[in-house]
Amino acid sequence: MYDIINKKKRGCVLTQEEIRFMTEGYTKGEIPDYQMSALMMAVCFQGMTEEETLALTLAMRDSGEVLDLSEIEGIKVDKHSTGGVGDKTSLVLTPMIAALGIPVAKMSGRGLGHTGGTIDKLECFPGFSTELTKEQFCQNVNRIKMAIMGQTADLAPADKKLYALRDVTATVEQLSLIASSIMSKKLAAGADAIVLDVKTGNGAFMKEEKDAFALAREMVQIGKNAGKRMAAVITDMEQPLGNAVGNSLEVKEAILSLNGLGPKDLMDVVYALGAEMVLAAEKAATEEEARNLLEQTIREKTALDKFAEFVETQGGEKQYVYQPELLPAAGIQMQVINTDTGYVGGILAEEIGLANLILGGGRNTKDSPVDLSVGILLHKKRGQALQPGEALATIYANDMEQAKEAYGKIVGAYRIQPQAPEELLMVKGILRS
Amino acid sequence: MYDIINKKKRGCVLTQEEIRFMTEGYTKGEIPDYQMSALMMAVCFQGMTEEETLALTLAMRDSGEVLDLSEIEGIKVDKHSTGGVGDKTSLVLTPMIAALGIPVAKMSGRGLGHTGGTIDKLECFPGFSTELTKEQFCQNVNRIKMAIMGQTADLAPADKKLYALRDVTATVEQLSLIASSIMSKKLAAGADAIVLDVKTGNGAFMKEEKDAFALAREMVQIGKNAGKRMAAVITDMEQPLGNAVGNSLEVKEAILSLNGLGPKDLMDVVYALGAEMVLAAEKAATEEEARNLLEQTIREKTALDKFAEFVETQGGEKQYVYQPELLPAAGIQMQVINTDTGYVGGILAEEIGLANLILGGGRNTKDSPVDLSVGILLHKKRGQALQPGEALATIYANDMEQAKEAYGKIVGAYRIQPQAPEELLMVKGILRS
Repeated sequence: MYDIINKKKRGCVLTQEEIRFMTEGYTKGEIPDYQMSALMMAVCFQGMTEEETLALTLAMRDSGEVLDLSEIEGIKVDKHSTGGVGDKTSLVLTPMIAALGIPVAKMSGRGLGHTGGTIDKLECFPGFSTELTKEQFCQNVNRIKMAIMGQTADLAPADKKLYALRDVTATVEQLSLIASSIMSKKLAAGADAIVLDVKTGNGAFMKEEKDAFALAREMVQIGKNAGKRMAAVITDMEQPLGNAVGNSLEVKEAILSLNGLGPKDLMDVVYALGAEMVLAAEKAATEEEARNLLEQTIREKTALDKFAEFVETQGGEKQYVYQPELLPAAGIQMQVINTDTGYVGGILAEEIGLANLILGGGRNTKDSPVDLSVGILLHKKRGQALQPGEALATIYANDMEQAKEAYGKIVGAYRIQPQAPEELLMVKGILRS
Repeated sequence: MYDIINKKKRGCVLTQEEIRFMTEGYTKGEIPDYQMSALMMAVCFQGMTEEETLALTLAMRDSGEVLDLSEIEGIKVDKHSTGGVGDKTSLVLTPMIAALGIPVAKMSGRGLGHTGGTIDKLECFPGFSTELTKEQFCQNVNRIKMAIMGQTADLAPADKKLYALRDVTATVEQLSLIASSIMSKKLAAGADAIVLDVKTGNGAFMKEEKDAFALAREMVQIGKNAGKRMAAVITDMEQPLGNAVGNSLEVKEAILSLNGLGPKDLMDVVYALGAEMVLAAEKAATEEEARNLLEQTIREKTALDKFAEFVETQGGEKQYVYQPELLPAAGIQMQVINTDTGYVGGILAEEIGLANLILGGGRNTKDSPVDLSVGILLHKKRGQALQPGEALATIYANDMEQAKEAYGKIVGAYRIQPQAPEELLMVKGILRS
């Protein structure tokens, strides 16, 4: 291990054997944390080649169970987002794809952050469970084309251990390490094709567009080298996606979207990602054809019905999909009032996320409970004109003090300016393998 | 600590408070190894400023006992060598300085390397002990002007812990870290003036002269900023120093030197360092005057007598100093025979050191026993003419197999060439605060 650290420190390229040795040794506890953290810091300065990144990804993938989804018929497509505020894309997109007969076998986490993860959100439906056996999971996908399962502890344990170490040693921010961390889990999850939503902007991990493109390129390359069909869509996260931030509010917005009433920015991202998934599954020959198929699932409500079927299959109350007013809603509703004249120049997405965290809608630590009923509904987004007295947003809270604190955060998040800002494209680019 | 690592990773300068916080926290075990090793790797890439290096040195000095030598009268001078092969300078120089009435209160270690440390070498004298109380140590210096004590465990424990970590995480080779490690111990040892022997060449830690000068500059600066009189002499380690390598052989050569028969390269280094010590102690006004005083201690045998007095004071057999043939000598003596015609172009010092290690004369691990009787006596040094059949060296061994293995190493260490090489200056430069 000493020689491996020294080699990387000097800027040399590590061999596949060396990378496998250190990954396996670290997972088993034979290589101590202090050597691994020194190596990670050296990687932050010297980087890794494409071959090194692939070797690390595959070694981490192989450190635990690699799901065999061969029982599922067809080309299985997975989707991953690098995360942002108000990102309910999966809730809308998965039933659309499944409604087209494309199998979506998805593993999700609970997430640690401003809101709960996809699993938390789905638990807004009473009775819903993601605790499926692998057999149930495959059977569900074969029968109704979609299933969502909680991420097993044994998926890429090397990544889990390494990420926890990087998190406390200031070695998270390195492109190849980020790419291999994400891709090791995605590869272990067993799909044939992977579509990535790489977010960029103030509310994303990658603040700069060029960094987001670089990360997308690395991940697409890793997936390609590992034998997967890959696409990455680089999308905007300069403000929260859609209008709803908070668990049940996001589920309601997803249901609205499946009813054809989705906010434009959200649906732009949904269609761009969806088209890539349909193309990867070979259900369409062109992007235009793919979009037409996806629009049909909304127009004909087949995606909405698929979502209801999915909720029911996993034990949840199906009628909530058709009567979203039944979903949990916080008791206090407080409007955030604008006092200026002008235009919304931008909304700091992270501040809105923090407001939701203040309300109890997110997780500070792994074991925090999440209040599904709280959140923020934005009434004004970037580019909209403002008059004094208009509501910027509505806060859904269960505690008046928390609501007041969130109020300040939300006001602070809005940037008001005299002129209308330039319009932003939601999709910055698409990379395919 | 996370913020400190991240700051250094980004190339920012750490404050004195941050450096003290992390050094103290690490020593107490509150900061884990894995964060410290990540920080050390970041330092390897980003370096440290003069202020940061001083802060680290002082924090490490203060992590344990700082010796108070105020009971000793006069300006106390210490000497430190960065280490090389055949370096018996301290054995010759210390009694010369003491013979001039300058107090030398020296702490020494056993060392880990090709030969034993100064303490091991002195144990060639039956009965000799370095286990002195602090009171005995000061009393001895006041009475006979010299004493050598084993390094206490509580001297700069932060450095001890940090060095052990750096040693296994490939973070040793960073100039400011090396300088602060050496200087933290020297400052804790309590002398008023410190003279450094910074070696350069194939047998030294610093292979390149410019690196040796840079290290010397850093250490002189630290010592000056910490209020000490400082000098550093950069000396040659392109071949072993003197002719003897191995514990008792080096003691014999030191005694020969005190009798006026020292090899020229060794004496060049001894006089250069000695002059700086005499100047620092204000016993002479010029370098020439200092050298004259030092030469007198050899000519008049006052240094030899001082050495005998010192050995006796610390419990050793004094007559061995006057009859060095009594010192331990290995049973097997094997000549290494030259087969070429030409000149010695160079001798790889490390290979000669390894030969001594093979013979059992050094330490592989902290607890290895050292065979004081074995070693190598070089008969030909750089620049000397060679005829086939002449002896290059004599091996002193206690095992025939080891002797044969050492033979190969020694032959391989000699570089023979048709022309005489350029003469090398032993002293490359002197830096003073």
